[in-house]
Amino acid sequence: MYPNPNAITRVTSLGAGPIGGGWAAHFLARGYDVTAYLHSAAETPAFMGILNTAWRSLTDLGLAPGASLDRLRITCDLDDALEGAEFVQESAPERLDIKQALYARMGAILSPSVVIGSSTSGLTMTEIQADCPTPERCVIGHPFNPPYLLPLVEIVGGKRTAPEAVQWAGAFYKIAGKAPLLMKKEIPGFVATRLQEALWREALHIVANGEATPEDIDIALMNGPAPRMVAQGQCMAFHVACGAGGMATNLDQFGPTLKLPWTRLDAPELTQELRDRMVDGCNAIAGDQHFEDMAAQRDREIVAVLRALRQARSG
Amino acid sequence: MYPNPNAITRVTSLGAGPIGGGWAAHFLARGYDVTAYLHSAAETPAFMGILNTAWRSLTDLGLAPGASLDRLRITCDLDDALEGAEFVQESAPERLDIKQALYARMGAILSPSVVIGSSTSGLTMTEIQADCPTPERCVIGHPFNPPYLLPLVEIVGGKRTAPEAVQWAGAFYKIAGKAPLLMKKEIPGFVATRLQEALWREALHIVANGEATPEDIDIALMNGPAPRMVAQGQCMAFHVACGAGGMATNLDQFGPTLKLPWTRLDAPELTQELRDRMVDGCNAIAGDQHFEDMAAQRDREIVAVLRALRQARSG
Repeated sequence: MYPNPNAITRVTSLGAGPIGGGWAAHFLARGYDVTAYLHSAAETPAFMGILNTAWRSLTDLGLAPGASLDRLRITCDLDDALEGAEFVQESAPERLDIKQALYARMGAILSPSVVIGSSTSGLTMTEIQADCPTPERCVIGHPFNPPYLLPLVEIVGGKRTAPEAVQWAGAFYKIAGKAPLLMKKEIPGFVATRLQEALWREALHIVANGEATPEDIDIALMNGPAPRMVAQGQCMAFHVACGAGGMATNLDQFGPTLKLPWTRLDAPELTQELRDRMVDGCNAIAGDQHFEDMAAQRDREIVAVLRALRQARSG
Repeated sequence: MYPNPNAITRVTSLGAGPIGGGWAAHFLARGYDVTAYLHSAAETPAFMGILNTAWRSLTDLGLAPGASLDRLRITCDLDDALEGAEFVQESAPERLDIKQALYARMGAILSPSVVIGSSTSGLTMTEIQADCPTPERCVIGHPFNPPYLLPLVEIVGGKRTAPEAVQWAGAFYKIAGKAPLLMKKEIPGFVATRLQEALWREALHIVANGEATPEDIDIALMNGPAPRMVAQGQCMAFHVACGAGGMATNLDQFGPTLKLPWTRLDAPELTQELRDRMVDGCNAIAGDQHFEDMAAQRDREIVAVLRALRQARSG
């Protein structure tokens, strides 16, 4: 019932802020026709400022064939904005009453075959879709700031969302140049923000206790975990750092360190089941790659990143 | 009493593992004469394997004038290894009894003006220096894996370390091409590992609860926080994302979200003092840079990183 995600050419982006503007810029850069809905014409200059800023970076990254800012249409009429839309990215203010009213209206206007993705970071789709007459096609498609540059989109449905809509959104966002993550459950903060929030709260504890300053925190992150984390997530970083034994060695040998006070966050119990999930998960990512090859590729990517940063900072 | 850190030319690196080998490679690449102490000659092939692997990346990053693998000397005699050393990087096994015995012996052999930096990640210098007759010059200089690539070195003394030795180590590591972080207090996990550990434990909770797989965790990190975190630490990321209002806006407006269940880690109480430390800290880093300029620089760096990764992955 949903259209072929490869055939989508017209996207409507709702919202004039940095997220709505960032999404509009992203879809334009990938060669879509984009209709932007702003609540008021007075928002146009700020919206275009966001778009023009984003466009410089998107041009540097490489535009899709035919991509152009001329393919943007701006309107302050919601019915007009949704007319002909084949996909809708909603980035309205983070207030449940506003979103619920918007979804009630969109649900009545839009063909049920048009998927709506919400950029919300703090609300669940189960809440947002409460008053929507066609809730099956409503998903969360949560970007990471700045949304025109960072590839991640976390996708999850609400209780009344059709699994097909979630799958469709995953396929569509991927075609549209994003790195989709289809979540297993509706949890507050999704995955990336949750992990970031754990780190952030530990940072606040550290500063509150006078153990380090905000500058220290940033020096530590930028020069330690970050250049490696672009090359490897935390699971594969530990998997590869442990040599041929991988994650199994990490957990079996260093499991007891989970009891050490290396953060204020208590660790979960390292059950056999959790151990196996971590080990099997890392082995699945690694496939038939040898440990030495993964370490060498990690190093090539870290070198590339450090060189690129040096260049971007010197000029 | 300590020598001019600019005048150091001869470094001794203790330890044949990935950390000791990584340090030896780093100092060689920065143009130092390096003596490597291995516990046994049988460790030489593995040690040289680490060195040769590291050397490829270090060559790509750019060697210091005169840097050469020929300036490495390997010995299995500790007295011989310490002869003529102007700085010692200790990366012995992470066992307190081994380290204490080593520091007792080094403390008797080495001139008290030679600073010793320990790579330990799990022990404190107060423990390590317990039996050392000259503990004033003993500091922790904790690298991040892989130590030949990641710039961070976390530096902190023990109860009997002279503050001058800590300052000296900060100056020396910086001259030697590292990004030193002088810690305010001796805390388990230092700063970077602590932040990483909070993130890691949250990841384990997420997997334990079936909310995501290890692959999901890594996709989220690599495509979300990581490409930004090389350009901005978490403090400046929030500071700049909030526009001209900066960290003050972040904490005053989003402070209540610290009560939301976005991680299993409870947040500290957002006291006026903590708020001010965060705000003042970010303003100090920002200096007189305008918000727009910081956001533009962030975007330039993210673009450079994404392009570099794309190239490193395509071939």
